[in-house]
Amino acid sequence: MPTEVIFRTATEKDVPAIVALLADDVIGAGREGASDRYLDAFREIDADPRNHLVVADIGGEVAGTLQLTYIPGLSRMGTERAQIEAVRVASAHRSRGLGREMIAWAIDQAKQRGCGLVQLTSDKRRSDAIRFYESLGFQPTHEGLKLQL
Amino acid sequence: MPTEVIFRTATEKDVPAIVALLADDVIGAGREGASDRYLDAFREIDADPRNHLVVADIGGEVAGTLQLTYIPGLSRMGTERAQIEAVRVASAHRSRGLGREMIAWAIDQAKQRGCGLVQLTSDKRRSDAIRFYESLGFQPTHEGLKLQL
Repeated sequence: MPTEVIFRTATEKDVPAIVALLADDVIGAGREGASDRYLDAFREIDADPRNHLVVADIGGEVAGTLQLTYIPGLSRMGTERAQIEAVRVASAHRSRGLGREMIAWAIDQAKQRGCGLVQLTSDKRRSDAIRFYESLGFQPTHEGLKLQL
Repeated sequence: MPTEVIFRTATEKDVPAIVALLADDVIGAGREGASDRYLDAFREIDADPRNHLVVADIGGEVAGTLQLTYIPGLSRMGTERAQIEAVRVASAHRSRGLGREMIAWAIDQAKQRGCGLVQLTSDKRRSDAIRFYESLGFQPTHEGLKLQL
């Protein structure tokens, strides 16, 4: 069985697998469904040089996904910050260090680009995820506030 | 004295005033300084259709600033989310409801664009700011994690 992980930019063909990962989640399940919007949204991400939708590919299978957004800003002497969203690992691939490898890879991408900061928010109900990010050096210094429209 | 607020896209001429606002802040003060990077960063923001640097202009003066970033994504049926960063109100204009007007304006922009969510993080030391966002309907459901590079 191949165990090598390849990090690559998602393609249109990966969209169903990524959406399945987003839906296969205690918190996210109720938010997904059948929609033509997914392909449109994929194309918007794919065409944006500051958004990078990534899959962790193991033997041709989408084992994990995350999205990187590079946000330009004036603060912190005008350095870009990297934001990580939509991190998911397929249930069959959990508890084997893949999440750690994915986040380490994302941090490395941000470093190579010259970002001053990597940021993300994690639902407070995901206490394991929060501990995981803290173990990677993230500091829970901020309150993450959301307003549904 | 003019009290009408005009929300407008920041121009290059506003950059020194915006940087001064970022630096005139208990938490942000140590992070700013003299740098050519500010103008480069401004041009990057200005050229990006998903980033909108805004000033609240009162009588030709920069009384406040915020940045909106529109993040495309697959999750939540492929709806875009709006993120608010770098919110600052000039000390002379605080405690008069300008911050509330700015955030209400930003939420309205996100609605008009069809975003499904508005999100932001606020330093946990800014307890007044957090209460302020909660009073506007934001829910503190997430942990905001940051990693300095």
